[in-house]
Amino acid sequence: MEKMNVSSERNITLIMDFYELTMSYNYFKMGKGEQIVYFDMFYRKNPDNGGFVIFAGLQQLIEAIQDMHFSEGDIEYLRSLHIFDEDFFDYLRNFKFTGTIYAVKEGTPVFPYEPLVTVKAKLIEAQLIETFLLVTINHQSLIATKAHRVCQEAKGRPVMEFGARRAQGYDGAHYGARAAYIGGVAGTATTSAGVAFGVPVLGTMAHSFVQSFDSEFEAFKAYATIYPDSCVLLVDTYDTLKSGVPNAIRVAEEVLAPMGKRLAGIRLDSGDIAYLTKKARMMLDVAGLHDCKITVSNSLDEYLIRSVLEQGAQIDSFGVGENMIVSKSAPVFGGVYKLAAVEKDGQIIPKIKISENTEKITNPGYKKVYRLIEKETNKAIADIIAFHDEILDEGQDLTIYHQSDAWKNKTLYAGTYEIVPLQELIFDQGKCVYPEYSLEEIRAYSTKQKALLWDEVFRLEYPHIYYVDLTKKLLDYKLKMLAEGGKTE
Amino acid sequence: MEKMNVSSERNITLIMDFYELTMSYNYFKMGKGEQIVYFDMFYRKNPDNGGFVIFAGLQQLIEAIQDMHFSEGDIEYLRSLHIFDEDFFDYLRNFKFTGTIYAVKEGTPVFPYEPLVTVKAKLIEAQLIETFLLVTINHQSLIATKAHRVCQEAKGRPVMEFGARRAQGYDGAHYGARAAYIGGVAGTATTSAGVAFGVPVLGTMAHSFVQSFDSEFEAFKAYATIYPDSCVLLVDTYDTLKSGVPNAIRVAEEVLAPMGKRLAGIRLDSGDIAYLTKKARMMLDVAGLHDCKITVSNSLDEYLIRSVLEQGAQIDSFGVGENMIVSKSAPVFGGVYKLAAVEKDGQIIPKIKISENTEKITNPGYKKVYRLIEKETNKAIADIIAFHDEILDEGQDLTIYHQSDAWKNKTLYAGTYEIVPLQELIFDQGKCVYPEYSLEEIRAYSTKQKALLWDEVFRLEYPHIYYVDLTKKLLDYKLKMLAEGGKTE
Repeated sequence: MEKMNVSSERNITLIMDFYELTMSYNYFKMGKGEQIVYFDMFYRKNPDNGGFVIFAGLQQLIEAIQDMHFSEGDIEYLRSLHIFDEDFFDYLRNFKFTGTIYAVKEGTPVFPYEPLVTVKAKLIEAQLIETFLLVTINHQSLIATKAHRVCQEAKGRPVMEFGARRAQGYDGAHYGARAAYIGGVAGTATTSAGVAFGVPVLGTMAHSFVQSFDSEFEAFKAYATIYPDSCVLLVDTYDTLKSGVPNAIRVAEEVLAPMGKRLAGIRLDSGDIAYLTKKARMMLDVAGLHDCKITVSNSLDEYLIRSVLEQGAQIDSFGVGENMIVSKSAPVFGGVYKLAAVEKDGQIIPKIKISENTEKITNPGYKKVYRLIEKETNKAIADIIAFHDEILDEGQDLTIYHQSDAWKNKTLYAGTYEIVPLQELIFDQGKCVYPEYSLEEIRAYSTKQKALLWDEVFRLEYPHIYYVDLTKKLLDYKLKMLAEGGKTE
Repeated sequence: MEKMNVSSERNITLIMDFYELTMSYNYFKMGKGEQIVYFDMFYRKNPDNGGFVIFAGLQQLIEAIQDMHFSEGDIEYLRSLHIFDEDFFDYLRNFKFTGTIYAVKEGTPVFPYEPLVTVKAKLIEAQLIETFLLVTINHQSLIATKAHRVCQEAKGRPVMEFGARRAQGYDGAHYGARAAYIGGVAGTATTSAGVAFGVPVLGTMAHSFVQSFDSEFEAFKAYATIYPDSCVLLVDTYDTLKSGVPNAIRVAEEVLAPMGKRLAGIRLDSGDIAYLTKKARMMLDVAGLHDCKITVSNSLDEYLIRSVLEQGAQIDSFGVGENMIVSKSAPVFGGVYKLAAVEKDGQIIPKIKISENTEKITNPGYKKVYRLIEKETNKAIADIIAFHDEILDEGQDLTIYHQSDAWKNKTLYAGTYEIVPLQELIFDQGKCVYPEYSLEEIRAYSTKQKALLWDEVFRLEYPHIYYVDLTKKLLDYKLKMLAEGGKTE
């Protein structure tokens, strides 16, 4: 096997739970590998008890599927385990994903239990993509969602993503910055995300910069001299109000003013943010530096940002690190990938996963999901899951049903609502038919889609629970399967 | 710029906070870039309020430093920002790390405030490695530590790492599996970690495997036929006690026994683990399957494992997913990288970071850290931080001092203790002089080092706070700097 170090060419293919291989080998030996099956990726619970999730990671999922391959080194490794045979290795050597995939567009606000990615593929192919599909979507959706929450509470003030050093690995930093941008941050400190995705990058100085000079003033002066047009000074290395802010003002007056330049900003990274920013604002204003921005960055998250703004903190922008890049208060997005149906003798046979925990029961069958928009308000009323071949007609009344209780239903009247399919065709029999959108396009799309939701869905605490309902046909089928104990034959 | 997708060749170099570049450019323009400086990487708080951390990630840090380079695409990107000049790009184009690095060995139990990595390098070089140094060590140390905690509570039962799908990105899964192995897991489900690091991989089946067959029995039979020697059956797809376990027993009797084989195990992934494993154990024993192992894997962590074992759950091994791979209860390891000294006119001038928060004050100077072992018990008494050139002599009494309070001290008597330096030389003026250890060697070393700690340090709640003390000389110097407000000149 080749040696793989941190900068080797990557092979995402083997970010794969080993059971995908043991199952696939089994299917291969049983002659079941070519059977067409249907899997849904969905999730059950919004992180942080929020109102929704921002779906993200689709572009990387597409790339991972397109690049999927088993190298000779991989096969040599698998051979060394002595549990597979050479026919299987030939199969893997020639492996290519030939299935069909539908998915929600990146940036879409989504809700529990609706199919976000639907895979129709040969059994082995559907199985082998499972792990990297989940890690890709789970990770980026988690961070995009957290970033949205943080930006929402910043109420229009720019938020910078600063978390690379505390991310869970290089991808945590790199794709985390991408996801955070989809979620709404104004930029990142992670340079690689600028290179790869065009996320705006920003950075000024660390405490070590200030310390490396003989005095704080010397450090500020050096920085102002090199960056007179974008001079943001870190003022808390020694004492924010007694030393940092006065030295920043002195630099504005003695270094920048003679060049005809203004001090762009100061940054605080410690202490009582509400108190210090109010004091600093007064000092800057007294010195005539009304246009000098104040940015803060000390273990912030959506809750702390809301709190300091409520206390009247004088803040123009935020830098958010570890709490966003790992979604510290909810560091797991629990997306799952569940068998929904199998084909047999040309028939689609729905499958269901039964559990004593009601919330773990799946929706059976090959399905589609639609968003229902109320025409009068141009707001989303509910999402509805239907069988893939069901025809929904805006010209008819539509009754939508709770996912397990038939008596919980609601009728939308013909002409009052629009039906918008949520999933797009991504792969058509192995061929990617979906365009590559720029990150700016994805971010703008996300903003537009969020505007379709009622304000009540955005509450940090106890948000309105958005309806994700079923058609009558799907609910009846599901209840019948549950009554029969999940065994369809 | 080249297009970078998930399987492009990697360049870890630009997992770099942009301020490393803005500061470096400043140093470059000021002619300060060649100044020799000293940085320490350390941390302030054990995750999960535990007693220690397992240091991990050094091998990847070494590789990242060796591979460090700025590609033409990177430079083209930086040029597009219009804030740097061509001289700086020439410097970056020819960049090579030429500094000296000391670090603790991977697998060492370490404690707050002691220098884990010490960098002596030219100012720009020391700055440009900061971000990837931190993310590498922070991530792997976090997961190795969590894995240790989980394995500790499993009390000798093997723990498998199953978390790839819930990891924060591909590296979260891949290097997370490596770190978990250092921390003590028996293996992983993440295949790439088997290929790259030789971590034992294991996997059996998912619920979808069972569902893809016409019946649970058919699924079990197919699996047993292909893997008669290592047949572990997932028994909770429909009903664990009414269907899963009886079908597993039937396969043991009707499929495996005629082949002269035994059922290796069953796995439960839902429900009340304590109750179900006791019932399942009885059913297996009644069927004569005393040697059939029971493995469980349902949202486990160290606390839940301790709890179910206290309840008498009948469990032979554990699979642990999301709670370990993201260290869910404490998903950030807060390693920092702080300036400790600068050279000026051939003199080493210690630097200190002052803060109103006492715990954010740094230890100044170019330092070394030692572990003190009590000869009588062969247990570690304390670690001690000294100036790099201080000579500690086991033949003398040694008084060790609390990091800020001189009256908190303790004297070790000559002949009763041994002094073990904790850091090794890793890079000597840019050249890596440290051997590459196998993961097995690192893991075995870690086990040996943990055995040097008192049992009291291992408690999950309120562990003994291990002493990390200073020499008299270092404490006096620090207190003098604090009294002078951190300004050394």
